[in-house]
Amino acid sequence: MISLYDIGELKTILDERRVSSGDSVRRLHSHDESFHAPVLPDVVVWPHTTDEVSRIVRFACRHKVPVTAWGAGTSLEGNPIPVKNGIVIDFNEMNHIIEVRPEDFQVDVQAGVIYKELNKSLTGEGLFFPPDPGAAATIGGMIGNNASGIRSVRYGATRDYVMRMVVVLPNGDVIRTGNRARKCSSGYNLTALFVGSEGTLGIVTEATLKLVGLPVNYMAVRATFPAVFNATDAVYSIMRAGLTPSAMEFLDANVVHVLNHDRGLKLEENPTLLMEFHGFSNQGLMEEMNFVEEICRTNEALSIDCGIGAEERARLWEIRHQTYESIKRYHPGLAPLIMDVAVPISRYSEMVAFCRREVGDLTAYLFGHAGDGNIHVHVVDDPQDKKRWARVEESGNNIVMKALEFEGTCTGEHGIGIGKCRYMQTEHGESLALMKQLKKLLDPDNLFNPGKFFL
Amino acid sequence: MISLYDIGELKTILDERRVSSGDSVRRLHSHDESFHAPVLPDVVVWPHTTDEVSRIVRFACRHKVPVTAWGAGTSLEGNPIPVKNGIVIDFNEMNHIIEVRPEDFQVDVQAGVIYKELNKSLTGEGLFFPPDPGAAATIGGMIGNNASGIRSVRYGATRDYVMRMVVVLPNGDVIRTGNRARKCSSGYNLTALFVGSEGTLGIVTEATLKLVGLPVNYMAVRATFPAVFNATDAVYSIMRAGLTPSAMEFLDANVVHVLNHDRGLKLEENPTLLMEFHGFSNQGLMEEMNFVEEICRTNEALSIDCGIGAEERARLWEIRHQTYESIKRYHPGLAPLIMDVAVPISRYSEMVAFCRREVGDLTAYLFGHAGDGNIHVHVVDDPQDKKRWARVEESGNNIVMKALEFEGTCTGEHGIGIGKCRYMQTEHGESLALMKQLKKLLDPDNLFNPGKFFL
Repeated sequence: MISLYDIGELKTILDERRVSSGDSVRRLHSHDESFHAPVLPDVVVWPHTTDEVSRIVRFACRHKVPVTAWGAGTSLEGNPIPVKNGIVIDFNEMNHIIEVRPEDFQVDVQAGVIYKELNKSLTGEGLFFPPDPGAAATIGGMIGNNASGIRSVRYGATRDYVMRMVVVLPNGDVIRTGNRARKCSSGYNLTALFVGSEGTLGIVTEATLKLVGLPVNYMAVRATFPAVFNATDAVYSIMRAGLTPSAMEFLDANVVHVLNHDRGLKLEENPTLLMEFHGFSNQGLMEEMNFVEEICRTNEALSIDCGIGAEERARLWEIRHQTYESIKRYHPGLAPLIMDVAVPISRYSEMVAFCRREVGDLTAYLFGHAGDGNIHVHVVDDPQDKKRWARVEESGNNIVMKALEFEGTCTGEHGIGIGKCRYMQTEHGESLALMKQLKKLLDPDNLFNPGKFFL
Repeated sequence: MISLYDIGELKTILDERRVSSGDSVRRLHSHDESFHAPVLPDVVVWPHTTDEVSRIVRFACRHKVPVTAWGAGTSLEGNPIPVKNGIVIDFNEMNHIIEVRPEDFQVDVQAGVIYKELNKSLTGEGLFFPPDPGAAATIGGMIGNNASGIRSVRYGATRDYVMRMVVVLPNGDVIRTGNRARKCSSGYNLTALFVGSEGTLGIVTEATLKLVGLPVNYMAVRATFPAVFNATDAVYSIMRAGLTPSAMEFLDANVVHVLNHDRGLKLEENPTLLMEFHGFSNQGLMEEMNFVEEICRTNEALSIDCGIGAEERARLWEIRHQTYESIKRYHPGLAPLIMDVAVPISRYSEMVAFCRREVGDLTAYLFGHAGDGNIHVHVVDDPQDKKRWARVEESGNNIVMKALEFEGTCTGEHGIGIGKCRYMQTEHGESLALMKQLKKLLDPDNLFNPGKFFL
């Protein structure tokens, strides 16, 4: 591939320091955090401006070279792996917060900004950007995957927070979508089309994000249950009662076991729910807390720990942070296959039970954003052991097919990447043809993140 | 036009009763509630099924006849006026609630369902569909225009509630978009692309809507202020304080005057704010109410009336219902031009002041969804008086241009229709070319609601 175009020419667009085809750099950009096989790009570039991105893309277009955008490499479906080699555009140096507009509850950022850092810098303004996928993801990556995480049950996904974008199209043209008004009925919603398209239709270089006022007060509940279905039934009752949790996480006993081991905790190793509520008044949160406790008790909770205030929230939720990393440390040398199906919430208990049966004796951890019907089955094993890994993949396949049978989706928040291409036809049916037409319209030479989405 | 195809052939698709080219029927489908000039369709049809819609569209496609979808005809920008004649598809008889799934907070409906009737039928389940544009709109029409209304400050617009759709494409093909999971990162978001496209890309025949639990409790505040800027500044302070109003409406003194006259009320004729808050606990709402009162007082409120509970909410809000109809009754024989700009909320006070100056001595009413930065300037005059009407349109034009200068939009919720086509280039810039490409891809013969969106 590398011989078909002159990498040196890229150095006329960016200064030399920001163009690299060194082995270690290429290796760093050959894999994300999934088990998918690494593939080396030909070259990695670090633009500073939209104009530079546009010129890189025009160069790629001229030479018919694949282009893959790169955020933090924290995705879980092989989304940014440059499976057809070519140019990787790393947004690491395009990480400026352009303007905070607290008076409009908005911020303008470059695509390489890490959302956790963004939120740190917004605390002083009493504002935050709610989607919270956990890893050190960039805004560009979150837009690409329509990332969400623990707070989407109340606040929605990244899609709900992107007001405007600057997008470089596959021909190098630059467009601006959206506006700064909180509501809009003007024209086709291009913003929503690009969000979640994983860099296959365009590359987002800047975005205006909607912000939300930091909660005035917090309430949190941690409850354990004798069986998974008690926990998941409690989730349903809480949602149905008109309560509006800001986060509602399910952890199975295996996850709690790992957390005890990895962090030296002494939690009961039972199916566990972690819940968070945001509110204005102490008294109001107290009433909600009593009601949640009552629902948990009705669902045979073994233990309920709860409290009001930011400190209580931190205490009760501390265990949830870095669940992914704890599991990784607990199984050195093994790789994860992390399923990410989402189903209508009435099917959540059934779906969780199906997952547990399906993984059988594999080493599997179940946790998820229960309030959204999103379940992660985290299986660890050795991808080199072909027979065992085939069994891992078969269970993943069966779980996805069951989620689709329940009219859910093969991916709640991790995206299609490499791993989910094969479910696109089953999930989208006749719509897939239209998706392919859109791809062809925007990217006729299939240069933007090729090898993803479509088989 | 009518001679180019045989209307009789439509009677082989639908029974005779559901195909009409009678004058009165055509006249009823020639105008919406705007001032835009009526245009007669050739024929009106009332399908019962998606398959019938598909067959009608295939017929139209064969004969290159325009097709315009028709909901309740309550739009305000000429959105469904069949400006190129052809076939109007009236969804009035496709108005079945297919399935309520309370356990999933979802409902499946045909496009002709009236949202107010849907909400009535959902009350028993303790659920509702939040977008509330006021008129007797159909779900299909709301999807076409991405309608919203008074509750979007908390609950968002129609776009935020459409999970799945059945869409008939301009070639007659039927696709299904979306799924039943509350979160999804799978594939291009076709649902969001069709919502707000005003029947120019596809015709929605069925939809799955997300529902929300009815609020457990209500709190409402009605406050009057000496000047418009006091009211609009109060809006901003309330939003900034971390309170989450469910509705926040501004009415200027002229609107209150008309309401007093039309309903025999005795309200103070001053700039007025109507606010609604939803919550779980009485005590919590009481604390919020005290805080809102304090903010209103700081902004020099002349009067504050407030209360907790559904009855108090109804009492305080009663005046807001049918504002549009009251103004209409107050000026018999005159027509309205209703502007619908939205701006970033920091610009709201300035925008409202600009609108007031701009309309000068025209008969104008200002009201709007203040929490969203959406302002309606409702001017009444005689469209036959060319000179006066030119002055009305000029003020409308200046107001839109100012909103765009403020990085807002020419339409917050009424859509592009006929009236806003000319702002598409200014508002969307280079993005407009891509919108045109999408239209061309899906509707190469420009048969779906032609004469809208693009000049």
